[in-house]
Amino acid sequence: MSAKVKGNLVIIGGAEDKEGVCLILRRFLALAGGGEAVVAVITTATEQAEEVGAEYSRLFYRLGAAEVRHLDVPDRETARSTALADTLRRSTGVFLTGGDQLRLTSILGGTPLAGALHAAAGRGAVIAGTSAGASAMSATMIVEGQDGSAPRRSIINMAPGLGFLKEVVVDQHFAERGRIGRLLAAIAENPYILGLGLDEDTAVVCDADGLLTVVGSGACTVVDGLTIRESNVSESSAGDPLVLTHVTLHVLPAGYTFNLSRREPGAVRPEETR
Amino acid sequence: MSAKVKGNLVIIGGAEDKEGVCLILRRFLALAGGGEAVVAVITTATEQAEEVGAEYSRLFYRLGAAEVRHLDVPDRETARSTALADTLRRSTGVFLTGGDQLRLTSILGGTPLAGALHAAAGRGAVIAGTSAGASAMSATMIVEGQDGSAPRRSIINMAPGLGFLKEVVVDQHFAERGRIGRLLAAIAENPYILGLGLDEDTAVVCDADGLLTVVGSGACTVVDGLTIRESNVSESSAGDPLVLTHVTLHVLPAGYTFNLSRREPGAVRPEETR
Repeated sequence: MSAKVKGNLVIIGGAEDKEGVCLILRRFLALAGGGEAVVAVITTATEQAEEVGAEYSRLFYRLGAAEVRHLDVPDRETARSTALADTLRRSTGVFLTGGDQLRLTSILGGTPLAGALHAAAGRGAVIAGTSAGASAMSATMIVEGQDGSAPRRSIINMAPGLGFLKEVVVDQHFAERGRIGRLLAAIAENPYILGLGLDEDTAVVCDADGLLTVVGSGACTVVDGLTIRESNVSESSAGDPLVLTHVTLHVLPAGYTFNLSRREPGAVRPEETR
Repeated sequence: MSAKVKGNLVIIGGAEDKEGVCLILRRFLALAGGGEAVVAVITTATEQAEEVGAEYSRLFYRLGAAEVRHLDVPDRETARSTALADTLRRSTGVFLTGGDQLRLTSILGGTPLAGALHAAAGRGAVIAGTSAGASAMSATMIVEGQDGSAPRRSIINMAPGLGFLKEVVVDQHFAERGRIGRLLAAIAENPYILGLGLDEDTAVVCDADGLLTVVGSGACTVVDGLTIRESNVSESSAGDPLVLTHVTLHVLPAGYTFNLSRREPGAVRPEETR
């Protein structure tokens, strides 16, 4: 297992297809065991937990899961329940819904449930997250940011995430909301960190060796700051526009891969992902 | 004079400050002769020609121009008037307003007025354009495109522009409207072409040697496709997401330069541009 990735992850840019072929959700279920999949849906990120939990439960049953459990965890009190953590032991897949990534980390962080999530990932359960659930996967996450802006330090706030994925920052609803500026602002602060921008209805499946494979109808944009030659991030005030030269950018649609360790794109056979 | 650039250009990403310090418009006027500037405002791009023409006329007078003429050219009949073309002879600056770039090229293309514009640029008059006026400057221009999308061939239409700037495609309202996808789609079709994405209230001043200097509150994003290693643009259908790897991207705020011939960013003294 790569030091960068814990378990098998499905990181979704939000607004995944739930009515058509459901390619991304089917892929998650297949990885989680197909007809034998035992899925836990964690709705901590959203304040509409009941509605969202019911929707994904129906969906995963319709797509053939053996068992779906909605874990309604609206506060730290609930997240501290060891009984709840125990219910994750049999799960082969965990799905983190959208909402607010800061709810996910502030409610789950340091609780037995978070520990059980990491244990599940460690024994090979698939951890999926969409939108806020995607953002929260990385060790450092974008909490909030301004869309449609040139990169400036002031347009993003970052915080510690759930830590399934290291040395990466994930942004979602990427093309749709014009978020290249905030992702660039994030990697500018530490160019060793790779920026992953996931479009809606687009996911990367990340295996334990750190190989990402793109699935879905949009693209995964990778911004790699290792090649940056000039940056003013440390001298600039928060509101100043940043200068960043020689950033390397990859746009990867379905079928393409990205190796996190080698920082290199590649291709797989398209039929595996479309 | 570089083969890439005709004259001195001020290429503005739209929504330039018209009420505060008016940095960009002042810079244009200074280049056009300051208190001696004779400015022609061409409102062909917009269907609100009277209103827009009056606004810029007031503005340039307020900023100290010696003379401002509004050239209301709503159709090819007017653009064919040699008398109108003659009025450009004394202009030291020409300002192309926003609107629809296809109006600019379809109405002006091949007329005596377009010839007079090129003659003016050739003798050193400053040609400025904002929004649609900026897009129309290049030899090939983006006519229209879809905002907030992963790059696909179907999201842009291109057409021949006014041709003051070669080997470059300009996009405007860049960060604000999430246009990196459409600019990438444009350069994918011919990576020799540089993509310039101009944020609102941001301009590049382009001298006759092809040195761009950024002015204003946002950034100029340069996408350079020369480093692209993998692209599927020729094999893909119009609606397929494109793959593009190893694109080089520069984000350049005020004070920074870009040399079109060497394709290299650089810095100037900030006080010249802020």
